[in-house]
Amino acid sequence: MRCFNGSREISLFDKADFLASLVCDPKDHETTESAFFHWLDEQRDCVTAEIQKIPFCRLRDWYFHPETGNICHVSGKFFTIHGIDISTNHGIKTHWQQPIINQPEVGILGIIAKKINGVLHFLMQAKIEPGNINYVQLSPTLQATRSNCSRVHGGNKPLYLDYFTGESDARVRVLVDQLQSEQGARFLKKRNRNMIIEIFDGLPIFDNFIWLSLGQIKALMRCDNTVNMDTRTVISSISYGHSLRDDFQCADAIDEAMLTSALDLNKAYLDLDHHIAWMTRLKTLYELDVHPIPLNQVAGWVRSEDEIYHAERKYFRVLAVDVCIGNREVKQWSQPIMQSAQEGIIGFLVKKINGVYHFLVQAKVEAGNFDILELAPTVQCLTGNYRKGLSEYEVPFLEHFLNAEPGQVLYKTLQSEEGGRFFREQNLNILVEVGDEFPIEPLPQRYTWMTLGQLMEFIRYNNYLNIQARSLLSAIDFRKERVVENRER
Amino acid sequence: MRCFNGSREISLFDKADFLASLVCDPKDHETTESAFFHWLDEQRDCVTAEIQKIPFCRLRDWYFHPETGNICHVSGKFFTIHGIDISTNHGIKTHWQQPIINQPEVGILGIIAKKINGVLHFLMQAKIEPGNINYVQLSPTLQATRSNCSRVHGGNKPLYLDYFTGESDARVRVLVDQLQSEQGARFLKKRNRNMIIEIFDGLPIFDNFIWLSLGQIKALMRCDNTVNMDTRTVISSISYGHSLRDDFQCADAIDEAMLTSALDLNKAYLDLDHHIAWMTRLKTLYELDVHPIPLNQVAGWVRSEDEIYHAERKYFRVLAVDVCIGNREVKQWSQPIMQSAQEGIIGFLVKKINGVYHFLVQAKVEAGNFDILELAPTVQCLTGNYRKGLSEYEVPFLEHFLNAEPGQVLYKTLQSEEGGRFFREQNLNILVEVGDEFPIEPLPQRYTWMTLGQLMEFIRYNNYLNIQARSLLSAIDFRKERVVENRER
Repeated sequence: MRCFNGSREISLFDKADFLASLVCDPKDHETTESAFFHWLDEQRDCVTAEIQKIPFCRLRDWYFHPETGNICHVSGKFFTIHGIDISTNHGIKTHWQQPIINQPEVGILGIIAKKINGVLHFLMQAKIEPGNINYVQLSPTLQATRSNCSRVHGGNKPLYLDYFTGESDARVRVLVDQLQSEQGARFLKKRNRNMIIEIFDGLPIFDNFIWLSLGQIKALMRCDNTVNMDTRTVISSISYGHSLRDDFQCADAIDEAMLTSALDLNKAYLDLDHHIAWMTRLKTLYELDVHPIPLNQVAGWVRSEDEIYHAERKYFRVLAVDVCIGNREVKQWSQPIMQSAQEGIIGFLVKKINGVYHFLVQAKVEAGNFDILELAPTVQCLTGNYRKGLSEYEVPFLEHFLNAEPGQVLYKTLQSEEGGRFFREQNLNILVEVGDEFPIEPLPQRYTWMTLGQLMEFIRYNNYLNIQARSLLSAIDFRKERVVENRER
Repeated sequence: MRCFNGSREISLFDKADFLASLVCDPKDHETTESAFFHWLDEQRDCVTAEIQKIPFCRLRDWYFHPETGNICHVSGKFFTIHGIDISTNHGIKTHWQQPIINQPEVGILGIIAKKINGVLHFLMQAKIEPGNINYVQLSPTLQATRSNCSRVHGGNKPLYLDYFTGESDARVRVLVDQLQSEQGARFLKKRNRNMIIEIFDGLPIFDNFIWLSLGQIKALMRCDNTVNMDTRTVISSISYGHSLRDDFQCADAIDEAMLTSALDLNKAYLDLDHHIAWMTRLKTLYELDVHPIPLNQVAGWVRSEDEIYHAERKYFRVLAVDVCIGNREVKQWSQPIMQSAQEGIIGFLVKKINGVYHFLVQAKVEAGNFDILELAPTVQCLTGNYRKGLSEYEVPFLEHFLNAEPGQVLYKTLQSEEGGRFFREQNLNILVEVGDEFPIEPLPQRYTWMTLGQLMEFIRYNNYLNIQARSLLSAIDFRKERVVENRER
């Protein structure tokens, strides 16, 4: 990794610095645990928020296009909601139509990192979003659409933007800059830049920002709805290289089977070329034809005065909300937002194969995917209907999550989707370990076993893992401790 | 790598087998050099070929769509030629229209490999294509569009297809199965599967097929127009792993600087994450909007009775040809085909950095690209205008190829484009070494230095390197011998 501004050379980045930030001695933390929670309470306490569902006609600056019925912003920017028609030979339902968010701009989700006390710390933000269950969640340093950056809506330039664009004079280097996908069932081919930059100079720290180690951020991912989706996807872009395990033999609370899974590519049950061949075969097998259609012609969906919903109340609905939210500075606007019909479940089954953890990965076809299919968790679905046995199709492996014994659960937390587009949507994120009773083979053709290191390699090359998979993997911290009851705050 | 049919397990594939096939002892070759050339002469001698340019009205089974003027096949299959409108903020020319081939089907380019005398051999085909300069070139075992496989045009099932689809009973395993792009300036988002499978049982060898080692295939790439484009792209998918150099210290004609460049990722001047960040930045910087338009509305292009050409006779033209070609079995058909306005040049500059070869790679925006830009050779352009100083824009680094001293030339051969779509199109493929007089930095922002091993990693993850880059890299065989005059046959 080299300097962003090219003029000043800085030594090569060592990926062991990421692992060191994960397992560092608490005395090297810039922010103590109690100071952090005190700060977070303060941030939440000073928030005033009024989020009100309104009829579409009361949306300001948004309108239904007179011909298509598409929902558009008067600036022509931000996003539109239109319809798509999907034909596929995958699954039981081979043709349908649905609304989708089209936001062709590539935004930046970026975290500034800095060595403090010899340990890499990350500058995190307490950010208010209208769709958040608890209004304030921990977000990346910068979370900006291109419209934000060019200030279509007026307003100020996003804080810290210049460090990411190279327009600041500070010495920075880019540690990560990847293009990664968003939810393929809700967004049409949407991608964001996931960035981590390291800074070597001082910088102003605003009141709602705080330095945390990687270990602290991952610990907070064990609290419900505390670390937002954008942080989770950026953190998932961190990989640790392949020759560093010796540094961590001292850390006695480390889960060796998980660390080996992350660091040693040679311990995988199947090699990377096998996985690439498997994906190629499936991409050739599955057809996915997606065509935009006017929102007012989407079959099976109903538009009323204040919502657009599926005729059987499935999947999700589109609402309009009036937002009055802020801390010292209160902002007011209205916008369309999507609400899920139910909570969902996002879970990986993991299994030790030859003593090394492997993840049961699914190749999932979703309408908004950039390239037909992406690697997804073992299970990714809405739960309500399945619990009631009302599902229109079967979800493989779901029962292993619904019936998991406490001792099998490595991780279990409720996590929020992005609060700028999704209204109070949370999904259960869960890792469940299976043992000898679960054979390695055979598997249905869309499923395979990968190590964590292989998944990290696929993340690195962009657009392989979907956001649900990345989000869930971001929480893995190699600690032996299993979480049966997730921490409440 | 595991068995295709899943039922019978075969030991893991060792990538060192690829290198062993490259540098093996000639006595282990199944086919001697003289036997090969005797066979090739035979194959060429028995070919009868009559390729005649005809007016479009004499095309059988192809027609101009009455509304759009698009060129279509009566079956609705194969390919169509329509127009595209391109807007981009990249380069000097930011808006243009052009004809393009749309062939949405994913075909298979596949080679069968088998261990003979302990050495991996590849089953190559002498294949006749109407656009080939010399009619017969060395092609993969299987070269089939999906239309071929489903036999839209009648005819027989392609030979050896069943081994690739898993429908044969033979024991095979998949060594490579990748989705790779075709020419982005001529095809709209076209991709093919590049496959290599290893077979463990006997199989029938037809008269126009022959077993060659990897070293033999690469040696033939030093002869003009002998190894076809499809073979070159499949061969480029071979990588050698990262820990095998000890096996080849015995081979004294090996170019250490090139072998290290291929095998040792840690010797690279810049790391892979840097390159991924660089591409992300450029993908965010460059916009590429491509819309299909009717062929009869493409501005700046003229349709006459027998060609569709650019008003200034630049780029390429679309022709119709009547084909009567074959050996024992003669086939007759007519088809549209593209002819380039000039020969082109496809060249990498290479430079030793810390004793290891690095390639000067360009991120190139082309209209048909799947994702805005792909990694391309240092120079990839038509040559005629540049030699005459008539170019509309400057091609960086071109003079290093035009003025290269013989001692700088590592490789130099005329290679054909795909003879099924392109009419007698050949490009100079060339590797030129630069020394201390050529500084490592600064470079224009679309250029960077990569090792061969890094380029192989990007090939492995699909859709990163364009076909011109892959074609050129496929010829690298680590031999010290430099080619000043290419071998003539």
